[in-house]
Amino acid sequence: MDLHILDHRLRVTSICKNGLVNFTHPLIKLIFLRNRARCKFFSLTETPENYTVVLDEEGFKELQPSEHLLVESSVWLPLNVVSNGNSSSSSQAVGVTKIAKSVIAPLAQQHVSVFMLSTYQTDFILVREKDLAVVINTLEEEFNIYREVGGEYSAVLSQDVCNGFQKNGKEAPQLTVHPLLIPQNQFCVMSLDPDTLPAIATTLIDVLFYSNSPKEGALPSQDLDCIKFFSFSLIDGYVSLVMDTEAQRQFPADLLFTSSSRELWRMVRIGGQPLGFDECGIVAQISQPLADNNISAYYISTFSFDHALVPEEDIVSVTEMLQQHRKEPAC
Amino acid sequence: MDLHILDHRLRVTSICKNGLVNFTHPLIKLIFLRNRARCKFFSLTETPENYTVVLDEEGFKELQPSEHLLVESSVWLPLNVVSNGNSSSSSQAVGVTKIAKSVIAPLAQQHVSVFMLSTYQTDFILVREKDLAVVINTLEEEFNIYREVGGEYSAVLSQDVCNGFQKNGKEAPQLTVHPLLIPQNQFCVMSLDPDTLPAIATTLIDVLFYSNSPKEGALPSQDLDCIKFFSFSLIDGYVSLVMDTEAQRQFPADLLFTSSSRELWRMVRIGGQPLGFDECGIVAQISQPLADNNISAYYISTFSFDHALVPEEDIVSVTEMLQQHRKEPAC
Repeated sequence: MDLHILDHRLRVTSICKNGLVNFTHPLIKLIFLRNRARCKFFSLTETPENYTVVLDEEGFKELQPSEHLLVESSVWLPLNVVSNGNSSSSSQAVGVTKIAKSVIAPLAQQHVSVFMLSTYQTDFILVREKDLAVVINTLEEEFNIYREVGGEYSAVLSQDVCNGFQKNGKEAPQLTVHPLLIPQNQFCVMSLDPDTLPAIATTLIDVLFYSNSPKEGALPSQDLDCIKFFSFSLIDGYVSLVMDTEAQRQFPADLLFTSSSRELWRMVRIGGQPLGFDECGIVAQISQPLADNNISAYYISTFSFDHALVPEEDIVSVTEMLQQHRKEPAC
Repeated sequence: MDLHILDHRLRVTSICKNGLVNFTHPLIKLIFLRNRARCKFFSLTETPENYTVVLDEEGFKELQPSEHLLVESSVWLPLNVVSNGNSSSSSQAVGVTKIAKSVIAPLAQQHVSVFMLSTYQTDFILVREKDLAVVINTLEEEFNIYREVGGEYSAVLSQDVCNGFQKNGKEAPQLTVHPLLIPQNQFCVMSLDPDTLPAIATTLIDVLFYSNSPKEGALPSQDLDCIKFFSFSLIDGYVSLVMDTEAQRQFPADLLFTSSSRELWRMVRIGGQPLGFDECGIVAQISQPLADNNISAYYISTFSFDHALVPEEDIVSVTEMLQQHRKEPAC
């Protein structure tokens, strides 16, 4: 299998809930006006805590410094596992499950912190630029590694970057057990032809930028078991949307598509307190038991918490296996 | 003929050019999200100087006070001339020309300041609420006057509002002669089905909010004879757009319509220095000679200047007659 280091230098930022109005102008430009913004990697995820915005340096220039904007200090690089020249989607399980043992676990073992961003099309593993040498050294046994520069891929050799670097031994990192939250809403992972993005513009703008102000006549939701979670990404021209079924009903049914009809997902949110960016092994802790049981999962990290999405029919067994896994000693 | 005093209490505001980014959030709500905003009268006009926003009190609540926002202190009421129960559009000339002698001239004579807002559908004459008694007293000879309250119209009798008010004599107000500017661009006055507004959302957002940042690859316009002027209004559910032919080319041709195919207009901008809101007779000065010659004209006041639009084929004769008219003593 091949591992691509993509040609995007990413920043991970967070806009506070009541600060979004100040960023409407640049965000709408980044989402809808591809002719004006040079950004090629853009992701916006609303959670109850804040809006996580991951974007490349061209996109980051559009965001003015503000008390409402938090910026993680590192530059992150997106990795992407490719099998047989195509983004792999043929194996039974999809998402992080596929890469749990080959990428996630080895990086956790080497104390490399990752920021995961699953989309409809693929799963991006974001690693800090400064960790690139250890990443390459760790993954080169399993993968042919290629680095994209200006659209061209060239093979990366460990000795080019690693410079006498020594891998850690096999001792497992200390794992913190984070509380899990299992909200009741059902989610869809969808896409649409980027050329039809204008057709859903007003709905998407409404959902992204105005969903916190009550709609005329609508009663505020009393259901505290439902989580606010909406993710939009536009990466290298591909659109991915993750939303719950309530948000989905606002969109025209004929434009958004999903891989199989009416495939629904349930969420496991990881973390009772904000997770930060330095702890390693959080994704591994979740993805390993899923991989052991061959259960598909999307995984979306945000500024404060991590979120796994598993098939609706598996949520009971996943909940049990994650609770079980946590009682065992870290492995 | 009937004159309607419409049930909107309007504010006239101005957003400075570099302050628009701070108002993108409320303005997009006012333009596109009719379910969320209760505003029923909204108009936004971009000129080289600023953005003039005229809106009712519900809409005005959406605009946060800011150093970038200027607000004229009065409440303004829109008047609308209606012939035979329909908004009149049957006579030969359209726009302010139709109401020049019956409304504009008498109000000027009574020193009533007006703010004109022509749209595709009709011409709104905005007067200050505090001038309402003199307006009614002045126009009741010519019109049956009805006031709209909660969708119902009731006849207004002069003695109900005028309370011993005496009209001015027939002495003409002192007229200032303002410089005229005749830009080279050609304008269209258009409309569209409000239900198709979402279909032009991204184009409209691009033109309104991002047209000052250069498009990738586009050269900045060197043509100083062309003026930046774009007006959008959404009033009682009707959309009106005034734009030049360059902006028009960005919109899908099948959604916008105009009264006659490819009818083009040229602009006469009134004022070398900002006109303010207190001078009377500016509209009369322009509309009277046009009425004398039965030349149609739209008329759009903004925070700084006034703008008349006349048929392209009449621009030479209009220019001559306006210059000529100014040399004669005020009449």
